[in-house]
Amino acid sequence: MADTPGSAEDRLIARYFRPLARHPGTFEFKDDAAAITPPPGHDLVLKTDGLIAGVHFFPDDPADSVARKALRVNLSDLAAKGATPLGFLLAIALPKGFSEDWLAEFARGLGEDADAYRCPLLGGDTDATPGPISISISAFGTLPTGTMVRRHGAKPGDHVFVTGTIGDAALGLYVRRDAAIAAKWKLDDAMRDHLVSRFRLPQPRNALAEAVRAQASAAMDVSDGLAADLAKLCRVSGVSADVDVARVPLSPAAAKALAADGSLIEPILTGGEDYEILCTVTPGSVAAFEAAAAGAGVPVTDIGRIVTGEAAPRFLDRAGAPLAFARAGYSHF
Amino acid sequence: MADTPGSAEDRLIARYFRPLARHPGTFEFKDDAAAITPPPGHDLVLKTDGLIAGVHFFPDDPADSVARKALRVNLSDLAAKGATPLGFLLAIALPKGFSEDWLAEFARGLGEDADAYRCPLLGGDTDATPGPISISISAFGTLPTGTMVRRHGAKPGDHVFVTGTIGDAALGLYVRRDAAIAAKWKLDDAMRDHLVSRFRLPQPRNALAEAVRAQASAAMDVSDGLAADLAKLCRVSGVSADVDVARVPLSPAAAKALAADGSLIEPILTGGEDYEILCTVTPGSVAAFEAAAAGAGVPVTDIGRIVTGEAAPRFLDRAGAPLAFARAGYSHF
Repeated sequence: MADTPGSAEDRLIARYFRPLARHPGTFEFKDDAAAITPPPGHDLVLKTDGLIAGVHFFPDDPADSVARKALRVNLSDLAAKGATPLGFLLAIALPKGFSEDWLAEFARGLGEDADAYRCPLLGGDTDATPGPISISISAFGTLPTGTMVRRHGAKPGDHVFVTGTIGDAALGLYVRRDAAIAAKWKLDDAMRDHLVSRFRLPQPRNALAEAVRAQASAAMDVSDGLAADLAKLCRVSGVSADVDVARVPLSPAAAKALAADGSLIEPILTGGEDYEILCTVTPGSVAAFEAAAAGAGVPVTDIGRIVTGEAAPRFLDRAGAPLAFARAGYSHF
Repeated sequence: MADTPGSAEDRLIARYFRPLARHPGTFEFKDDAAAITPPPGHDLVLKTDGLIAGVHFFPDDPADSVARKALRVNLSDLAAKGATPLGFLLAIALPKGFSEDWLAEFARGLGEDADAYRCPLLGGDTDATPGPISISISAFGTLPTGTMVRRHGAKPGDHVFVTGTIGDAALGLYVRRDAAIAAKWKLDDAMRDHLVSRFRLPQPRNALAEAVRAQASAAMDVSDGLAADLAKLCRVSGVSADVDVARVPLSPAAAKALAADGSLIEPILTGGEDYEILCTVTPGSVAAFEAAAAGAGVPVTDIGRIVTGEAAPRFLDRAGAPLAFARAGYSHF
């Protein structure tokens, strides 16, 4: 957030971002860098993830929700690793002739979420770009030294848990692209809006971070689809998994869409952007984990078991037969 | 650097970035986030700055130098704040159909500089973009708690120092845009190449960080032009400055260009991207600062004094008359 006296960049930072400089280590964005004092005995967990207009969000999505999503996709990773948010850096590139109204709404949404998740803006960089609006956030969390929950660590016999519901964002993206599809799926307006909002605005599970750190043997957030992300967790852990598809938690909207079109089970299980936590818990810790989740107000569902082997995880239907997916997960390339 | 098994993104990360995962806290980029243990008793200094093709570099610049510049502009800020590099996060957005040869060279340059500056890659994010190549780096440094050197702190009577030479990058950009101008300035090939290389590849002064921390009353790096950056330092410190233009250090190439065209003094003093350190030193610390700089092998030059007042710093010619600039500093907006 280095500013040039009197420059347009200076004015943008002063007007839209300086009000967000609530951490003393930001020096009100009047210096070249921020300084933070990490809590003694703690590690820093570092994550960077970004959004590009036309790739990760629709150019006409509300600006405040774009800001919230940019921050929340990073908060979701911190939650899954068991970390408490500490703050973030923002890099934003704006096309020439961008709307200041858009930026004002962006800053409002960002500031509200920074407060809500206790994750203050620590610094940033604004640039002009000949390309689309591009936002990159680097988020930092803290946890007691050595306690970051890894993808590695799942053992045969561990229970596989997910938070919340799966598949809403993938179906929400379908609806966002083709509104007529909601009628085909027999969704009422509230159900349709639920799916779209789940695509537009992740609900990261930071309330569960402490329970994950205390009880999970391995964890990650579900961003590239449950099937692909469970495959990654298993691969790094050197194990496989059997998931009972009937137990995968669905929202009423997703369940109704699936009842109308059974082939939607594939985007539900392989579509991206759920931003729920996927974790494994040893049998002896299941009761404590479920109690901690209830205490945190986060719904968790036991969907399967870790098993030996190096095969891809199996998603088993009611007859016990594994589903075959046409595509394993989402990639922008 | 979260990877999707078998995806193109996974392959890119495995092939080009995993070899750079030399810090144990990266978990070889096989997890969602990195974890680092900050040194006890130290603060973290945080900075983010980015480069966009066509804005901050030429699309046909060598890929390895683009990577080096992206890292070095951040290292320069850490140096000016007195911090020792700890590591960095990389976010890179690539257009569809980008060249893998380009990415291989980018990763090679990035890895070499990460080693040279002892600033390892800790994690990242790769995305596809419909826009130009965009690179955003968040860099982290450490220093004893509470010792970050601020822009604030300059006092009347302090000496104003700069490292290296000023104006080369601004003149290098002119030459890069119009090769014929080098002949007009009567530069030989080595001088021409010197200016272009100073634009293309900053030489951050990390070797001076400890001396800055020990001896400077205020400091920042020169990225938006000496005149604008000194104005910022003075404004935050509540002071002004008198700079003796004849003492501003110039390279032989810049001096020769200036001899050919006296009007170049304006881009020399106001052009951006010097990536030298500007700092102020109390009279009693000047000898110790100069000795420490000599020990670090970094040339430093005393170019003026901090004075009372809130006026913009004055750049005085040999007759003691202040220069007037048409533009105060560089801004991309």
